Amino acid sequence: MPLTSDISGVVPIAPTPFHPDGRIDEASLDRMVDFFEGAGVDGLTILGQLGEAGKLDHAEGTAIAKRVIGRTRLPVIVGVTAPGFAAMRSLAHEVMAMGAGGVMVAPPNTLRTDDQIVTYFRNAAEALGPDVPFVLQDYPLTFSVVMSPTVIRRIVTENPSCVMLKHEDWPGLEKITTLRGFEAEGSMRRIAILVGNGGLFLDFEAERGVDGSNTGYAFPEMLVDVVRLTKAGRRDEAHDLFDVHLPYLRYEQQQGPLGLAVRKYVFMRRGIFTSDAQRKPSQALSTQAREEVEYLLARLARTDGRARLPG
Amino acid sequence: MPLTSDISGVVPIAPTPFHPDGRIDEASLDRMVDFFEGAGVDGLTILGQLGEAGKLDHAEGTAIAKRVIGRTRLPVIVGVTAPGFAAMRSLAHEVMAMGAGGVMVAPPNTLRTDDQIVTYFRNAAEALGPDVPFVLQDYPLTFSVVMSPTVIRRIVTENPSCVMLKHEDWPGLEKITTLRGFEAEGSMRRIAILVGNGGLFLDFEAERGVDGSNTGYAFPEMLVDVVRLTKAGRRDEAHDLFDVHLPYLRYEQQQGPLGLAVRKYVFMRRGIFTSDAQRKPSQALSTQAREEVEYLLARLARTDGRARLPG
Amino acid sequence: MPLTSDISGVVPIAPTPFHPDGRIDEASLDRMVDFFEGAGVDGLTILGQLGEAGKLDHAEGTAIAKRVIGRTRLPVIVGVTAPGFAAMRSLAHEVMAMGAGGVMVAPPNTLRTDDQIVTYFRNAAEALGPDVPFVLQDYPLTFSVVMSPTVIRRIVTENPSCVMLKHEDWPGLEKITTLRGFEAEGSMRRIAILVGNGGLFLDFEAERGVDGSNTGYAFPEMLVDVVRLTKAGRRDEAHDLFDVHLPYLRYEQQQGPLGLAVRKYVFMRRGIFTSDAQRKPSQALSTQAREEVEYLLARLARTDGRARLPG
Amino acid sequence: MPLTSDISGVVPIAPTPFHPDGRIDEASLDRMVDFFEGAGVDGLTILGQLGEAGKLDHAEGTAIAKRVIGRTRLPVIVGVTAPGFAAMRSLAHEVMAMGAGGVMVAPPNTLRTDDQIVTYFRNAAEALGPDVPFVLQDYPLTFSVVMSPTVIRRIVTENPSCVMLKHEDWPGLEKITTLRGFEAEGSMRRIAILVGNGGLFLDFEAERGVDGSNTGYAFPEMLVDVVRLTKAGRRDEAHDLFDVHLPYLRYEQQQGPLGLAVRKYVFMRRGIFTSDAQRKPSQALSTQAREEVEYLLARLARTDGRARLPG
Repeated sequence: MPLTSDISGVVPIAPTPFHPDGRIDEASLDRMVDFFEGAGVDGLTILGQLGEAGKLDHAEGTAIAKRVIGRTRLPVIVGVTAPGFAAMRSLAHEVMAMGAGGVMVAPPNTLRTDDQIVTYFRNAAEALGPDVPFVLQDYPLTFSVVMSPTVIRRIVTENPSCVMLKHEDWPGLEKITTLRGFEAEGSMRRIAILVGNGGLFLDFEAERGVDGSNTGYAFPEMLVDVVRLTKAGRRDEAHDLFDVHLPYLRYEQQQGPLGLAVRKYVFMRRGIFTSDAQRKPSQALSTQAREEVEYLLARLARTDGRARLPG
Repeated sequence: MPLTSDISGVVPIAPTPFHPDGRIDEASLDRMVDFFEGAGVDGLTILGQLGEAGKLDHAEGTAIAKRVIGRTRLPVIVGVTAPGFAAMRSLAHEVMAMGAGGVMVAPPNTLRTDDQIVTYFRNAAEALGPDVPFVLQDYPLTFSVVMSPTVIRRIVTENPSCVMLKHEDWPGLEKITTLRGFEAEGSMRRIAILVGNGGLFLDFEAERGVDGSNTGYAFPEMLVDVVRLTKAGRRDEAHDLFDVHLPYLRYEQQQGPLGLAVRKYVFMRRGIFTSDAQRKPSQALSTQAREEVEYLLARLARTDGRARLPG
Repeated sequence: MPLTSDISGVVPIAPTPFHPDGRIDEASLDRMVDFFEGAGVDGLTILGQLGEAGKLDHAEGTAIAKRVIGRTRLPVIVGVTAPGFAAMRSLAHEVMAMGAGGVMVAPPNTLRTDDQIVTYFRNAAEALGPDVPFVLQDYPLTFSVVMSPTVIRRIVTENPSCVMLKHEDWPGLEKITTLRGFEAEGSMRRIAILVGNGGLFLDFEAERGVDGSNTGYAFPEMLVDVVRLTKAGRRDEAHDLFDVHLPYLRYEQQQGPLGLAVRKYVFMRRGIFTSDAQRKPSQALSTQAREEVEYLLARLARTDGRARLPG
Repeated sequence: MPLTSDISGVVPIAPTPFHPDGRIDEASLDRMVDFFEGAGVDGLTILGQLGEAGKLDHAEGTAIAKRVIGRTRLPVIVGVTAPGFAAMRSLAHEVMAMGAGGVMVAPPNTLRTDDQIVTYFRNAAEALGPDVPFVLQDYPLTFSVVMSPTVIRRIVTENPSCVMLKHEDWPGLEKITTLRGFEAEGSMRRIAILVGNGGLFLDFEAERGVDGSNTGYAFPEMLVDVVRLTKAGRRDEAHDLFDVHLPYLRYEQQQGPLGLAVRKYVFMRRGIFTSDAQRKPSQALSTQAREEVEYLLARLARTDGRARLPG
């Protein structure tokens, strides 16, 4: 079932588990899918940056997609960002044929002007074809591409297959309000807005009107609860839960390979992954960083028992 | 008394108060200096980015420096970043003659290679002259200049007048550990390392061996306590205090004019500034953002009474 | 007499002569002004990047402006690019009071979106005030700011005091045609377009409809002739002259301090400057580079006798 | 036969011919290979940026490589730049098995520090394996990655499989001299240095000691002659020939899709390609640009008869 602009809730960005020798760890992959389902999420995003997509060759990437799609009934979004439209189209069509719900496209970091950005996504949408729903990723911190609200509106308006925005601009609260304002005044059709950026502002982003969360935080249970509580108007409870997670969440949300290392370590400590190995090039956690993570999780577990780790 | 590498503790980055019509608000400036002294800080940094230095002309900038230096016995560090070395030298000599403790220099965002960065600071140090102690600002997120630990070591080694690093790389914990390791092994002379980045990692940065904090957080009292508690080995207490501030601190630490708007608003609400006006070009807080700040401060004040606001 | 959109012809970007010990060389400055007048130019631009403006303090910059403005009846454009609007306004008003014709403003290289660029120039124009005509500098290669034709149109339309575009995009021929097309269709008021970029495409830029040249080529006599011949419809003659200069022109147009070093060397060899010294930080020509320049000039002088050097 | 550091002479960067409907034009591909052989070149580089590699899917890219390698005895270098090392390794091993001579690797434009650049190429070399000779591409203008000579020395020293530098820094003459100096003093093993950058400085680069040219200029015959004449010490003749090509060469060397459009047009006009079509996204030559190219070629043909075009 293809992704539509009705998607809402929590769609985690999934890491890819490896054995210490670099092979893909399929048992852990299965466990992760089951874990996410158990946590109450509403979809999955795979083969993104956090999924070390760039370290997989084509056959490995499609094998992972096939396995994940085959194991869950949740909609699966597949990252297809590629240096050229031909490779993007090939991968997209392959995973859609397997049953993916849609794909995610990030802009290349050479784009500068508004027109360059709009043209890029017009070309991408044309390469993908009208039957491939896509998620527009807006992450200036990583991609160095700054999309103003009016540029997003132009992309959404030009391309009916753009059904969701992965919003991770920073700061970004006013941007969300502006986009929702465009929809309210009728100058932009409604799309789903799910927020990334490690979840660092999810508490307020949810209040500003986003539909959910689309990030790799290692405790998706919290994301699910905060989105749910906010939608139910239980503001203080949402913040109370969010705040108790924030010291660790902030630590995890460090940019680049370190953030990934922290998340894989916690997935291993939670029993989801057998190993926290990354494929090379990789960055391991230092002894001190591991101790810091353990310290933060121990403090978190005093209030949120789901963060209590075995042993 | 010139700044030396013995500086430690908390050195706030000071904003500049304006009247709503754009004039400098000298009464608020005086109040701010007194407030910082009362909060137990160990120095002041003025005319940095947060101080809207770029919106002041030369005469205004030196007038502010004169007033602040004249009002406090604390060492005052003055931002002298300029597009050319001649202007940098002029301003530095003028404020040193007034009694400034030292100056702060940030790299222009055109620098790329290690050699370019090292050469820039060699030229800056030479322009300033051997009697002007300077702070090296390492803030890749804003300046787009990435200094590896070995580059910092080269700058420190070449330039005896470099006495302090304002560290705000992100992520940056391992960088601190590496630099302190250079000092321990004798490959770099000891310098002061004070951390910025809005304080977002101060809890762990303090444990990694930095000498203090050099940032614009609107509750410097907390910075003072966290640095003190950590130095005293009272880890849990330091984190307990830090964590209760983190939800607001994270909100304040949004990049660009928004972060400044939040801080000025809180300085006004705390009675330090008469107005939260910025000089043009400026960005005002939206109604919703103001409500979010109030909400965060009210939650903070439940635990830390110093955050309780009048009315 | 203030600069208007009627400016046309050749407006050289002037270097600043120094003595080997770093002092400004006023005799050479005077000789340069007289030389430019003798070459038949239509104005002068001073205190730009090529003029090492960043290495001058405020008093030095205004002293140079005063001396140049006092010596010539040609309109003088003064570079006032500064990190903040307050400094920009101060310098602009000071030089306008001396009789400058207008000022030149380049965008800071942190700007990304169309709206950011337009807003910057709106703020700059407001800071300068309605009585200060300004030149918009469009030089993506150096400033990393890419202005699409529609952005330039927005800036021109919003700011009546924007009277001239210094065009140095690369490639840029189609951009010129697009802008002239905007004017022809009435969607943008007419402004002067003078081209920089070292003159590398002046032959075709002149045919595409620009009003002249605004660059630092060391033989402005050629620029004057090419602009004149093209306006007279003598295409082949224009290209014949341009082509014979191109091997040296291409060499001079190397980016950064090297291009400046070549130009100052040739000004010295032509007897205009007493020394080719740059202020520090500087880059001297290597022996091999000097030989290459001499070789190119000797070849050029075989056809254009004005390039023949003494001794 | 694998590529070694003995490669010298002219190795053109080949475009990829398409039919107007987007299919690969194999007859033109064959004609191009034969044309290059007839022009006296010493190798071929395919699937680079100029070859529109990003618009080809994997199967198309390898089919082109197979066809070209099968048709010529010259060494063929294949561009394998990819967002991840797994894809880079796959493609490299596939084309090496077909008989490619080596591969070319460009740095991703996110690299900043010296250490980041060196680490990237260490990882790339390890991914490729010791039996895949690679060309290091140094092109700051396009990739925004600036490699100082000492960084290049570190990469060459660490990775025995790095056999050639594609030098296209600008300005770059002193860099060549520095690298050759490293070799002369014994601090770096000798590698082949071939120069790109459209050939804009080939005349002097050849005199500074490079081994040849590695660029896409549409008249490789000129490149062959200039390299040969310079090696034979016939300096004036080399410059005479180069200078007559320079007006057109400069026009062709405009950055981005325009430069490619010019080259494909000339390949079509020379009878090598049946069509000058690019795959989408593409940029066609305007009528005015085509006229300008024709004008330049007609002028060139007056002196170099090889530039005379049919009809």
